[in-house]
Amino acid sequence: MDVSANKGGSDDAFVVGVDFGTLSARALVVRVSDGAEAGTAVREYAHGVIDRELPTGRDAGGAERTTGGLAGHARELPPDWALQDPGDYTDALGAVVPAAISDAGIDPGQVIGVATDFTASTCMPALTDGTPLCELPGLAARPHAYPKLWKHHAAQPHADRINATAHERNEKWINRYGGKISSEWQFAKALQVLDEDPELYQRADRWIEAADWIIWQLCGTETRNACTAGYKGIFQDGQYPSRDFLAALDPRFAGFAADKLAHPISPLGGLAGRLTPAAAARCGLPEGIAVAVGNVDAHVTVPAAGPVAPGKMVAIMGTSTCHVMNGAELAEVPGMCGVVDGGIVAGLWGYEAGQSGVGDIFAWFTRNGVPGEFADEARRRGMSLPELLDEKASAGPAGAHGLIALDWEGGNRSVLVDGRLSGAIVGLTLATTAPEIYRALLESTAFGTRMIIDTFDASGVPVTELVVAGGLIKSAPLMQIYADVTRRPLSLIGSEQGPALGSAIHAAVAAGAYRDVPAAAAAMGNVVRDVYQPDPVRADAYDELYAEYVRLHDYFGRGPNEVMHRLRAIRDRVRSDQ
Amino acid sequence: MDVSANKGGSDDAFVVGVDFGTLSARALVVRVSDGAEAGTAVREYAHGVIDRELPTGRDAGGAERTTGGLAGHARELPPDWALQDPGDYTDALGAVVPAAISDAGIDPGQVIGVATDFTASTCMPALTDGTPLCELPGLAARPHAYPKLWKHHAAQPHADRINATAHERNEKWINRYGGKISSEWQFAKALQVLDEDPELYQRADRWIEAADWIIWQLCGTETRNACTAGYKGIFQDGQYPSRDFLAALDPRFAGFAADKLAHPISPLGGLAGRLTPAAAARCGLPEGIAVAVGNVDAHVTVPAAGPVAPGKMVAIMGTSTCHVMNGAELAEVPGMCGVVDGGIVAGLWGYEAGQSGVGDIFAWFTRNGVPGEFADEARRRGMSLPELLDEKASAGPAGAHGLIALDWEGGNRSVLVDGRLSGAIVGLTLATTAPEIYRALLESTAFGTRMIIDTFDASGVPVTELVVAGGLIKSAPLMQIYADVTRRPLSLIGSEQGPALGSAIHAAVAAGAYRDVPAAAAAMGNVVRDVYQPDPVRADAYDELYAEYVRLHDYFGRGPNEVMHRLRAIRDRVRSDQ
Repeated sequence: MDVSANKGGSDDAFVVGVDFGTLSARALVVRVSDGAEAGTAVREYAHGVIDRELPTGRDAGGAERTTGGLAGHARELPPDWALQDPGDYTDALGAVVPAAISDAGIDPGQVIGVATDFTASTCMPALTDGTPLCELPGLAARPHAYPKLWKHHAAQPHADRINATAHERNEKWINRYGGKISSEWQFAKALQVLDEDPELYQRADRWIEAADWIIWQLCGTETRNACTAGYKGIFQDGQYPSRDFLAALDPRFAGFAADKLAHPISPLGGLAGRLTPAAAARCGLPEGIAVAVGNVDAHVTVPAAGPVAPGKMVAIMGTSTCHVMNGAELAEVPGMCGVVDGGIVAGLWGYEAGQSGVGDIFAWFTRNGVPGEFADEARRRGMSLPELLDEKASAGPAGAHGLIALDWEGGNRSVLVDGRLSGAIVGLTLATTAPEIYRALLESTAFGTRMIIDTFDASGVPVTELVVAGGLIKSAPLMQIYADVTRRPLSLIGSEQGPALGSAIHAAVAAGAYRDVPAAAAAMGNVVRDVYQPDPVRADAYDELYAEYVRLHDYFGRGPNEVMHRLRAIRDRVRSDQ
Repeated sequence: MDVSANKGGSDDAFVVGVDFGTLSARALVVRVSDGAEAGTAVREYAHGVIDRELPTGRDAGGAERTTGGLAGHARELPPDWALQDPGDYTDALGAVVPAAISDAGIDPGQVIGVATDFTASTCMPALTDGTPLCELPGLAARPHAYPKLWKHHAAQPHADRINATAHERNEKWINRYGGKISSEWQFAKALQVLDEDPELYQRADRWIEAADWIIWQLCGTETRNACTAGYKGIFQDGQYPSRDFLAALDPRFAGFAADKLAHPISPLGGLAGRLTPAAAARCGLPEGIAVAVGNVDAHVTVPAAGPVAPGKMVAIMGTSTCHVMNGAELAEVPGMCGVVDGGIVAGLWGYEAGQSGVGDIFAWFTRNGVPGEFADEARRRGMSLPELLDEKASAGPAGAHGLIALDWEGGNRSVLVDGRLSGAIVGLTLATTAPEIYRALLESTAFGTRMIIDTFDASGVPVTELVVAGGLIKSAPLMQIYADVTRRPLSLIGSEQGPALGSAIHAAVAAGAYRDVPAAAAAMGNVVRDVYQPDPVRADAYDELYAEYVRLHDYFGRGPNEVMHRLRAIRDRVRSDQ
C-alpha cells in the first residue's frame, strides 16, 4: 500500500481501528494525515456464534485469558438464541493489533490512538470491575451469563411487553424508535434475563454493551457511548426510561437503568481514557495513548465513507444491513430503529434502520438450498459457490424467474420491527432452479432496502444519496440489483474495512489530530461515487415486482395474516414438548 | 411370482394390461382367474417429456416406426409446454408386451385379451386413418402437430375463455366440472392449436386422446371411451358442447366437436375390436384376441384396488395425484375435475379430482433444492436420496419445522382448477434445512388431498374409505403423513402396477371372462386394508397447520391476491421480450 501521499498532518502518525464483527475481529492501521490504510489483520473468534449449546471449554489457543474458562456442562440452547464468549474478544484483540502493526511495517511508537467498533446491541451482565458473569466460577453453564449477540432473537416476548407498556403509558421516547423497541436491544435482553434467571440478573452489577466493555478492557474505566446508549439503551433527551415505566414491566426491574446502566454519556470521537499497561502489553502498543469512546460498526462507517452530510444514507451490507444517515431535523420515521441526537456524529440527528438478515440469507441458501452440481461446477471453474451463483443469477432479465421472496429469514428489523416474522417464497414452479431462487433472495433484500428508503422519504427525512459499504459491495450483480430496484445511482465506500477505518477516524479525533469527526472524515474517509447506475428497463420490471413485494409485506407483516407468528409458536411448542 | 392359487376360471388364461405413463410404458401379464401377476416389463420413452425444444430426429432404437421420423429443425418451446412423440408409444408397446410375456414364462397363446390405459388428457391431432400430424412430412417442426401431454399448461388462456363463455351462457355442463374446465383438457388444448396454428388445426381430421389412439393402433378402428369423453371431452348427457357455444368461443371452432370428436361412445370394459395382424406381430400376441376400450390410468386403478363401492376414494399418487371415486348419486362438487356417468364403472357416477403436482414436486425439490452433502450421505449409506430425505424428514414431530407450503408448483387442479397458480413456502428461517423443506412439501400435498376430501364431504358425496395406489405408496413417511393429516386409516392397493392391473381387469371383461368390471374387480383386484393409522397427537398438530394452509390457499388461490398470476405474466412477458 502506498502511504506516501500527504494531505496534512504528520506522515509519521498512525492510528489503529479495530472492528469487532459477528464472527471475527479485524484491525486496521491507518495514517492520520490522509486515511491511507497501512496494514491489517483478522482473527476469527474461537467460539464464533454460540447458538446450539454452550461450549464445554476453551481452546488451548486462548491462553491469555485470566479469569477462568468455560468449565461446566454443555447446555443446549433453545431456538433463536445467539451468545458469544467475551474471552474471544480479548483474544482477538491481542492477536490482530500486533499483527496489523507488523503488516503495516511501522514502529508501534508511531501509533497515537486506538478505537474500536462493535456489533450492537451485543450486551452482557458484568461485575463493577467489568468481569463478565460467564467468567465467574460456577456460572459458565448458565446461558444468561453470556453476552447476547445482536442476533439473539429470543427476547421477542420481552420486547412485546416493553412496547405494549410504552404505548399504554404514552411514553414519548417510543416514537424515537419507530414505535417499537427491538428484541435485539438492551432492555428486552435484560428483561429476558430477569424473567428466566432472576438470580443471575441480581448478580449483574452492570449491563453493558460489548462496544463499551471492550473500551473498559483498553483504558480500565467504564464509559457509555452516545450511540449505543441512544439506539440500543433508550437514552433520549438526557435520560433512560423512568423507574415507574420499568416497574410497570416488572417491579424487580424498576432499578434496572439506575443500577445497571446509569453512567455519564460520552460523545463519539471523545477520549475514553488512556491505554493501560496491561492493554498496551496485550496489543503491543505504547502505554498511555488515546483510547476513543466506543462505537458501533454501522454508525462508525458513515465518516469512513467520506464527507458527512444530511441525507447521505450509508447502507452497511454484510450478514445484516444497517442503514445509517444524518438528518438536520428530528422526525419520526415509522419502523426506524431509532433517531439519536449525536448518534452518528455530534450535532446532527442520527437515523438508523436495518434489515436483520442479508448476507446471512444468501449464506443460508448457499449452504442449504443449492444442489451439489453447482458446487462441482464452481470447483471446476475455480470460483467460489457464491460467485458462481452470482453469475448464474444475473443471467436473465428481471422478473424472468417469476418469483417473489420476503427477506425475513432473520426476522424484520425495519420497517416492521418484528423478529418473529420469517421468510417466504412465492411463485415456485417445477422449472424453478436454485440460481433463480438465489436471485429472488438477492432481490428480496433490495426490496427491503427500498421499503426503508421509501419510508424515510415519506416521513420528511429525504434520502439524497445512497452509499454502500460492507463485504457485499464485492458482488457486482447484487449492487446492480440494488441500483435497479432503488432507481438510484450507487456510490461505494472506497475501503474494504469501512468500520475499522471509521474507528481509526475516531481514534484520530480522540488523539487530538482533528478538531472533530466531520473534519477527520473529510480528510481520512473514502467514497467512490456513482459506481452503479440504474437501468431503466430493469427498473421498470422491478417496479412491478416491488409492488408485489409490498402487498406480501403488508399481508404477512402488518396483521392480515399472522401465520408467521403462529408457525413459530407451533414450532417452539412442539419442540419444547419433545 | 406364485401363480398357483386358483380362485376360479381357467388357470391357463391370461390377459395383458399396458399402462402408458408420463415417462414410460409398462406391461403386466395377469392371470384371469385371480389377478395373480405373472410377469412385467417397462420401457422409457425415448423422448420422454418434450418441454424445452422439439427433437431433431429419432433415436436409432425406434426403428419399428413406419410413418417417418421427427425430421426438421429443432424449435424451442415456450414455458408451460409439454409434448410427447407418439412413436414413443408404439415403440414402447412393441418392447414391453413381448418382454412381459417372456418374464411371465407363459405361452403367448394363453393370452385372451389386451387392454391399455393412458395419461389424460393427452390428446393429439390426427388424420382420418389415425396418423398423428407430427408424423406427416413437413410438420415435424410444428409444435402444435405433437400430442399435448396432460401437463402441458400453456392453454390456460383458452381454458379461461371456455369458462367465461360457459358461465356467461349458463351452460349446464360446466357444473359437472366443478365450474371450471381445465387447461389440461381436450377443448382448451384444441383451442390453443386453432389460435396459434390455424392451418394445422384445419389439417387435423380428428382430435383424439392418446388413450383412444393407442387402441386404434391395436385393433385398427377408432373408438372413443366413456371416461375420456366425459372427463376430458365435456361429453355429458349424451352430447358434446353445442355448435353455438363453440362458435361463441371462435366462429372457426364451431364444428370442432362434430368434425373432430364425434363418434359413438364406448363403455369401459367393452370390446373395442380384435388385435390386428400388424399389432399382433408388434406385440407378439395372437391375432384376433380381444382389445378392450381405452382407459385412463387413474380411473382404471379403481377396480385394481378391489371391490368397487360408492364412497371408496382411490388416490393414485405418482408424479401427480388423481382422486377417483364412485358415487351412487349425481352431485356438484366445487372444483372437482368432473363427474361422469359410467366414467369409472358403468352404472355409477364416477367422480374425479386431482393434484397437478405431487411426486413431481418431490422430484423437483430433490433435484434442485438439496445440497450435495445429502447426496453424499445417501451414497455412503447405500440409499436413494429420496429415501434419505424421507428418513430425515420424518425425524421430528409435526410442526417442528415452522413451515407451510402450498403444493402448486405444477398448478392446482382441484379444488381451484387454476394452472397458473404456483408454489409457495412460508416460515423460512436461517435455521431451516433442506429436509425440513422437503417434509413441508410432503405435507403440502397431504393438505391438498385433505382439501379435496373435505370438499367432497361438504358437497354430499361422502368419502367413507381412502385407498392409496401408485408409486408413492412405497414411502412410509409420506403415507403416515397422509393418515395423520386426513385423520383416516389408509388402505393400500396390493399391486405395484395398479393401472396395468386395472387394464388387465378390463381386458378380461372385454374377452368375456367376467360379466362386468365389478365382478372382475372382486376376483382380480387387490387391496390391503388400514395399513396406516392416524396418530392423534400428530393429527392435532396437523389440524393447526392445515388451518394455516387453508388460509393461504384461499388468499393466493381464491382472489384476494392474484400475485401468482401476475408473476407468471411478468415472467412470460420478459422472457418473450428477450
